[in-house]
Amino acid sequence: TAGSFIYKYFLFIVTSLILATCSALLVKDADFVKTSGISEVKTIISGVVIKDFLSLKTMMVKLIGLTLTVSSNLWAGKEGPLVHIACCCAEFVMHFFPVLDDNEATRRELLLAASASGISVAFNAPISGVIFTLEQLTSYFYTSTKMWTSFICAMTGTILLNSFKEGIDVYVTMDNQWLGFELFGFMILGISGGLFGAIFNKMNMKFAQFRKDHISSRGSHYEVVEVLVLSVVTSLVTYPLVFPRLPLNTLISRLYKDCDGVDENIMGGLCSEHPGYSIALLICTGITACILTSYTFGTIVPAGVLTPALAIGAIFGRLLGITMESFQTSSPFLSDLCRESSNLCISPGAYAVVGSAAFLAGVTKMTVWVVVTVFELTGALTYVLPIMMTVIIARWTNDQFDEMNCYDTWIRFF
Amino acid sequence: TAGSFIYKYFLFIVTSLILATCSALLVKDADFVKTSGISEVKTIISGVVIKDFLSLKTMMVKLIGLTLTVSSNLWAGKEGPLVHIACCCAEFVMHFFPVLDDNEATRRELLLAASASGISVAFNAPISGVIFTLEQLTSYFYTSTKMWTSFICAMTGTILLNSFKEGIDVYVTMDNQWLGFELFGFMILGISGGLFGAIFNKMNMKFAQFRKDHISSRGSHYEVVEVLVLSVVTSLVTYPLVFPRLPLNTLISRLYKDCDGVDENIMGGLCSEHPGYSIALLICTGITACILTSYTFGTIVPAGVLTPALAIGAIFGRLLGITMESFQTSSPFLSDLCRESSNLCISPGAYAVVGSAAFLAGVTKMTVWVVVTVFELTGALTYVLPIMMTVIIARWTNDQFDEMNCYDTWIRFF
Repeated sequence: TAGSFIYKYFLFIVTSLILATCSALLVKDADFVKTSGISEVKTIISGVVIKDFLSLKTMMVKLIGLTLTVSSNLWAGKEGPLVHIACCCAEFVMHFFPVLDDNEATRRELLLAASASGISVAFNAPISGVIFTLEQLTSYFYTSTKMWTSFICAMTGTILLNSFKEGIDVYVTMDNQWLGFELFGFMILGISGGLFGAIFNKMNMKFAQFRKDHISSRGSHYEVVEVLVLSVVTSLVTYPLVFPRLPLNTLISRLYKDCDGVDENIMGGLCSEHPGYSIALLICTGITACILTSYTFGTIVPAGVLTPALAIGAIFGRLLGITMESFQTSSPFLSDLCRESSNLCISPGAYAVVGSAAFLAGVTKMTVWVVVTVFELTGALTYVLPIMMTVIIARWTNDQFDEMNCYDTWIRFF
Repeated sequence: TAGSFIYKYFLFIVTSLILATCSALLVKDADFVKTSGISEVKTIISGVVIKDFLSLKTMMVKLIGLTLTVSSNLWAGKEGPLVHIACCCAEFVMHFFPVLDDNEATRRELLLAASASGISVAFNAPISGVIFTLEQLTSYFYTSTKMWTSFICAMTGTILLNSFKEGIDVYVTMDNQWLGFELFGFMILGISGGLFGAIFNKMNMKFAQFRKDHISSRGSHYEVVEVLVLSVVTSLVTYPLVFPRLPLNTLISRLYKDCDGVDENIMGGLCSEHPGYSIALLICTGITACILTSYTFGTIVPAGVLTPALAIGAIFGRLLGITMESFQTSSPFLSDLCRESSNLCISPGAYAVVGSAAFLAGVTKMTVWVVVTVFELTGALTYVLPIMMTVIIARWTNDQFDEMNCYDTWIRFF
């Protein structure tokens, strides 16, 4: 009924608001706790010394702040802050080994290994963490021992994580095959992913400049009010769209699922009988998510950008998937092509997976890492080639419009 | 009947003999075509200049020789020579770009990318190739552009390969879960893998020294006779064991398959009703394969060591799997543990996969690459953690007994 809807709506807004505000209040006067932290870790591993950036106090505050942020309904991921927290841990442990005091190289190698475990634990994907450090964090120094230490760190982290909780966060089994004409769709996703990355970075920097000029300069309590307003806007917009009410990880796993045999009530409008309804829903959510994420990544609360990028990619991927599916059912030519394959012809879930890869590549400019991560999250063995192709197209497109990835633009901005 | 068995046995020996001898005759007087080639490529990428090692003639001879070797029944893989061939291709193409003549760094980067495509095509696993170059071939120089070029090369190679042939070489779907007590078995596999790597390298070097002292010194036709004898011995021993008659890739995919619902006639004794028969078969095959592989890797025919190592690991893994399965069916305690899980309790196929990973890690001392490759070949998403753990144990065990991997021992030997 309308009454119960409004009551739940109100409750949703208030809970999110309280969590987000607590997080903002907690971090507002602490140094180095704000935002993601990957950019700073990247500079530290390249050799910059930032005093107290990796202190125990930073770690505790960031850990609590991150938990509050992720629990509130903001479009924020946990991977960036987790990398920072893992590095703080490593720094703390290193205090007990005086032999490391003189050896900056080994210290950095250990920070690198810690970063690997941060990413691995965030996605529950051990190899992903190792590749992330290789592709994003080391620029010029490289020894194969680094790979070995990162590997052990990432594995230990993931085993511990899995002994506390059951199962894998985002996990679908994809065993249907793709058809030749679908490559056209994947190409569109690749181009969209590259463009998204460029637009996201532009908007993100515009918002950052706006924040610097008009909010941060007035004092830290204005920054808390900013988060407060952002939280209310986010809840106001996402609740009526039904399916984005979910936590991001659940949202992504829903988007990766195909519709046959799944209860429509769980899917929250994604498997509606009228494709037009699902398409409208996905367009609204997609655009909202883009704007909200590019604003949220940069506010004072600890927030990562990778999980939201995965989600936005999945939304636009599924949008294209559903569109192609309704084309196919109405076009006799495509239906003929499909009849030859025994399985499900066009799988909107697979498009969501490919979309995630494209958008992640667009935002981060990484390639191998994106493929490995998507592969570890979904086990999409049959889709490796389309995913790789899409990722390369996304990277190429992005290179035409943008020189830097989301972390490097922030390093320049500081 | 006995008559038809002897007739087929004879035919098997003769065909293998002809193919192996042709290969040996072809390469006996050509420089740089012999053996695997990865060790030499590794030194070239590190900066050593070997004139004519990457010529067009070398490429053609090696390509034909490799085809003959792999078709004969020798325990030889195709990945090492394919890396060499890919590098020759790259070198040939680079002649047309005079701008590269002055730039040794870019030339090496392109050779690295070519190596990536060689490994990717050998295993039909694109990411595996990229990681191989990162973990094995680059020692000190590293830029993230290398990763990007290798990625494009590996992807293009795999797409072309897949447009010529259908499906993936070694591909099983593993969706059952492992149980806690199985970790004990995986640990045994890890230790065995590490020990195998050390023993393999020792034997391989002993054989190499023997060959240098008693065969190569007498002239190249003695080397041909060596291959001839090796081929006859290989065929004589493997044919009666039934299942190793298969080409290595098919052999591996059989070993990864579980028995339920599979026709025993296809499996060639692996799924016998009497576990004792399968166990005896696997022990004989395993020991034979170890000796034959460590002799074959180093003869003049182009041969790689990775595919045989995968196969030997799969053999010993399955051996342990079958042994544990028969323990479990006879022990009430283990049966109780199994009853709680809904799926197949102990999967010999999964043990074969883990065994492959352990033995590959033991021989090559690589870790991330092994996990990524096994993952790409099998899609064993639920087994990532045991595989990683086993690989780490294998590497640790191996480090206690052996300083170098199979490629570095050869670099020292030259």
